Formats: sequence, C-alpha cells, structure tokens
Amino acid sequence: MNFIKIVIKYILRLISYRSVQKADRFFNILYTHWVKYSFASFGGNSYLERGLRLWNAKFISIGQRVFIRRMGNLSAWDEYMGQQFQPKIEIGDGCSIGEFFNMSCTNSIVLGQNVLIGRWVTLIDHAHGGNGEEELEIPPAERNLVSKGGIVIEDNVWIGDKVTICANVYIHRGAVIGANSVVTKDVAAHTVVAGCPARIIKTALK
Amino acid sequence: MNFIKIVIKYILRLISYRSVQKADRFFNILYTHWVKYSFASFGGNSYLERGLRLWNAKFISIGQRVFIRRMGNLSAWDEYMGQQFQPKIEIGDGCSIGEFFNMSCTNSIVLGQNVLIGRWVTLIDHAHGGNGEEELEIPPAERNLVSKGGIVIEDNVWIGDKVTICANVYIHRGAVIGANSVVTKDVAAHTVVAGCPARIIKTALK
Amino acid sequence: MNFIKIVIKYILRLISYRSVQKADRFFNILYTHWVKYSFASFGGNSYLERGLRLWNAKFISIGQRVFIRRMGNLSAWDEYMGQQFQPKIEIGDGCSIGEFFNMSCTNSIVLGQNVLIGRWVTLIDHAHGGNGEEELEIPPAERNLVSKGGIVIEDNVWIGDKVTICANVYIHRGAVIGANSVVTKDVAAHTVVAGCPARIIKTALK
Repeated sequence: MNFIKIVIKYILRLISYRSVQKADRFFNILYTHWVKYSFASFGGNSYLERGLRLWNAKFISIGQRVFIRRMGNLSAWDEYMGQQFQPKIEIGDGCSIGEFFNMSCTNSIVLGQNVLIGRWVTLIDHAHGGNGEEELEIPPAERNLVSKGGIVIEDNVWIGDKVTICANVYIHRGAVIGANSVVTKDVAAHTVVAGCPARIIKTALK
Repeated sequence: MNFIKIVIKYILRLISYRSVQKADRFFNILYTHWVKYSFASFGGNSYLERGLRLWNAKFISIGQRVFIRRMGNLSAWDEYMGQQFQPKIEIGDGCSIGEFFNMSCTNSIVLGQNVLIGRWVTLIDHAHGGNGEEELEIPPAERNLVSKGGIVIEDNVWIGDKVTICANVYIHRGAVIGANSVVTKDVAAHTVVAGCPARIIKTALK
Repeated sequence: MNFIKIVIKYILRLISYRSVQKADRFFNILYTHWVKYSFASFGGNSYLERGLRLWNAKFISIGQRVFIRRMGNLSAWDEYMGQQFQPKIEIGDGCSIGEFFNMSCTNSIVLGQNVLIGRWVTLIDHAHGGNGEEELEIPPAERNLVSKGGIVIEDNVWIGDKVTICANVYIHRGAVIGANSVVTKDVAAHTVVAGCPARIIKTALK
C-alpha cells in the first residue's frame, strides 16, 4: 500500500498543474481555429477560450492579438421575437476581455485598440422595452428590444471587474472605469470614473 | 501536409459552432429529464442547464416553461449546523434565470410568472448571524442563520445583471431592477430602481 | 418503447443528483491531492474545487480546513512585462472562499482565520499604472503594475457576494462587508460597511 502511495505521489508531482494548464491552452488554440472561420473577420494571433456562448459570429469582427477568456457570452441579435436588427460588434487589435463577460448587441458595440476588460463585465446596447405602465405589464422577455444607441469604447480604456456599460455610452480614450461601476453616461478621455451610477473620481494631470 | 490541413479545415467548417451548441442543448435536455423527478414539482417544457449546484430539490417547485441557465447555485437549507428550517423555493411559469445565479433559501423565495433575471444575480433570504459584538467574534460560517423574512418577486419583474436581492424584500409586479443594484427594501409596482442601495429612478407614466 | 422508457426512468431515479455531486466532490479531493504539493504550504483537511486558475502556487500558503470553491482565479505574480515582484498570499485556517473569485497579488494578500467570502469577489492589491495623462495613453496591459499596499483581512470577517477589495485596505476582525460593495478604505473591527464605495452602515453594539 505504502509503495503504491509513493508511486502515485511521484506521478502526480511529475505532471504539474502548470503543464495541465498549458495543455488546456492547447485545446483553446484548437477551439479558436475551429470557430474563427465563422466570424466576419478574425485577426492573426487572436485567441478564444472555451466555454464561450457565441451567437451570430458573422456580425462580429475580431482584430489581431485579441484575447477573450473563458465562459463569456458574445451575442449579436439579428432577430428577436419577430423584430429585425442589424447588429455589429467590432473588437479592435490587442483587446483583452476577462472571464465570464456578457456582450449582447442589437445595434453596435465597437471597441478600439488595446482595451483591457476585467471579469464579469456586462456590455449591452439594448433593453427589454420602455417604462410605460402598459408595457411593464407584458412579460419582459416578450417586450420589444429597444436600443437607445450603440456603445463605443476608444483605445487604451481600462475597465475593472463587474462593470456594467449601458446603451448609448461613449467612453473616450485612456479612461479608467472602477470596479463594480455602472456607466450610464459618456466618459471623457483620461478620466477615472467609479460608482453606481459612475461619477468622475479623477481627471488626468496634464 | 497541405492536403491534411485542407481536409481538417473542411471538417471544422462542416461542424459549425452552432451545431455543437445545439448538441449541448441536447445534453441539457437529458440532464433536465434526469434531475426533474427530484423537485417538489416540475412543469412541462422547463429546462435546466448543466453545471447547476442543487441542494434539497424536494423543497423547490418549478413551473412551466422555466429556463434556468448554466452554472447556478440553487440551495434550500432544511438543516445547517444543527438548526432546522422549512425552506420553500417557488419559481413561476415562464421565468428565465440567467447564468451564474446564486439562490439560497432557509425561509421562502417565491417568483411569480415571467420574471426575467440577468446574470450573476444573488437572491438570499438569510444572513450569517446578527451584528452584536459578541456574535461578530464567532466565525461567520458558525453563526446561526437568521432570516429577516422571505423574498417575493411578482409577475413580469425584470432584474438586471449582478443584482443582489436581500431578505425581507417584496418586489411588486412589472418593476425593473437596474444592473449592479442591491435591493434592501420593497419595490412598488411598475417602478424602476437602481443603485447600491437601490433607489427609485422612475415611476411608470399612466 | 414504453418498456425502455420505464427502464431509463428507473435508472435515472436510481442515480440521484446527490450521488453525482458526491462523485464530483471525490474528483475535487483527487484534484486537491494532486495540486497541493505545489503550494508554499497546504494545511490538513483543506479542499480545492476544480476549475481553478492557479499561477505561482509556490508563493501561496493555505491553512487548515480551507475551502476554495470552483472556477476561481488565484494568481501570484513574480514577473510581469519585465517587472519583478515578491508576492505573498496567505489564507488562514478555516477560511472559505466562494465560487468564481478573483485573487491577484503582486505585493501581499493575507487572510486571517475563518474568513467567509461570497461569490464573484475580487481581491487585487495592484493596478495597471497611475493616472498621469501620458501613462493613460499607453495600452493598460502594458502599463507598469503599481501596488499602493497589500490587503489584510483579519479573523472572522464576512464578505458578501460581488464585493471588490482594493489595494492598501486593512479589514479588522469581525467586520461584515455587504454585497456589491467596493472597499477602498480600512474597515474597523465589528463594523458593517456597504455601498460603492463602501461606507459604515452599523457599528456593533457593545
């Protein structure tokens, strides 16, 4: 018994967690090569992790050196309950999107270059219906999808964990969005915002 | 080598990501049929995705056409560290619960019909102990579970991503809960609330 | 056909979801025994769930009876883009960390005993660069990692779901951090804080 235990111990030590994570990376590369032809465009050295929920990849463009982590949701809706849409998702070169994100589009979501996004981030450019009393008596999933406007995130923006970006928001270059923020309004360049709803915390020193 | 590459490419294109997601749906249906007999009741055309953490399904009733997405936690506690409870979770017809939710009950959580819930939503009707200084010196996991009251969510409520609903909260019909909100008080019908803690943003026009 | 249906039904009922979850626990124990030798130290009866993203376990110490749930990210960075760090993560006896957490360290993260942490909690002791205008023109992932200070969480602290703990924060014993909070400042002992940013809600009665 002791002998078997020692043998098992040594085998386990031989196969380190690092080598298994590398193997996992290999399967992610295979996954990327399989899925990439479905996209509108897919740049070189971009990399998707498995566990992605993908919907209508033909409306989604991925730049070069993009890194999209596991278990996200990437959906472009051209049709919902009889409504027709022309969605467009563009993810620029060098963007990195953290695990467990939720990006859902009926209008347009455009990310510039080198945007860094944390975990559990929501980017949705539409809502289930308006706020009239009659509409609020309809089951939310059966209300019309309404987009107040698309989302634009310019170059070098850094978005923290658990941020939610609402429709009709333009985030200018170099902005920083603090963790757990809800961004409902445009954010100026080189500005740090945080809170729920997000307010200006700091403006960059010139 | 080139020939093999081309063959692989064509096989990959043949098996699209959509067909694999459909296959995944098939396994989810199998999973649903396997688990459903454990529930107190389980309506027709309801559908659970895999990755669910389920505890004491015998205290949980699921209506018809309910859609519960992957990787959630659905727990009803009848016993915790020697304490006894009579939990009750009821999920009404047509409800849809997003991925990665956390629903934990020692008292009662009741969802009406057609409630739409986003991702990463927490519904917990109990807390680990009170706020007395002596109690706060006990390890939180060993404090008594205390419920200030159950959670009721009426028909047609729409709950955004990353919302937390606290104990003793009654959300009336047609309310909308903004993303990242923490709901600590009752919400009136046809009202939009948001923030941390949640405050009224809009009341429906009549 | 009916006969086959009945047979399948009975087989499904025989293998309950509980027994499968127990089997899953067994695989988690195997996983723990495989990974534990990579850590700086790993106490008895501690338990890791699979789906963990682990980086540089040699800088991480785990106490006894620690329970770390699935799908988290546990990273200690000794090197990033040419910068050198001496990270240190210490998790005390009896700590419990919920699913989907994100703990990332270049400086020091120290948890005392019996800390209870909810789901989707972020603990990061560093940031991507400062807030100077020139720096904000650099891609965030290429900015230098800066730590304003380590994170210390003392004994018996209870942290709710979706909390974010920022750098240079000291949370004293027996504190309670409400769900969805962003903790940017030190928290006194036996104090309840909540909000975004977190503010004092209650101080324990003596």
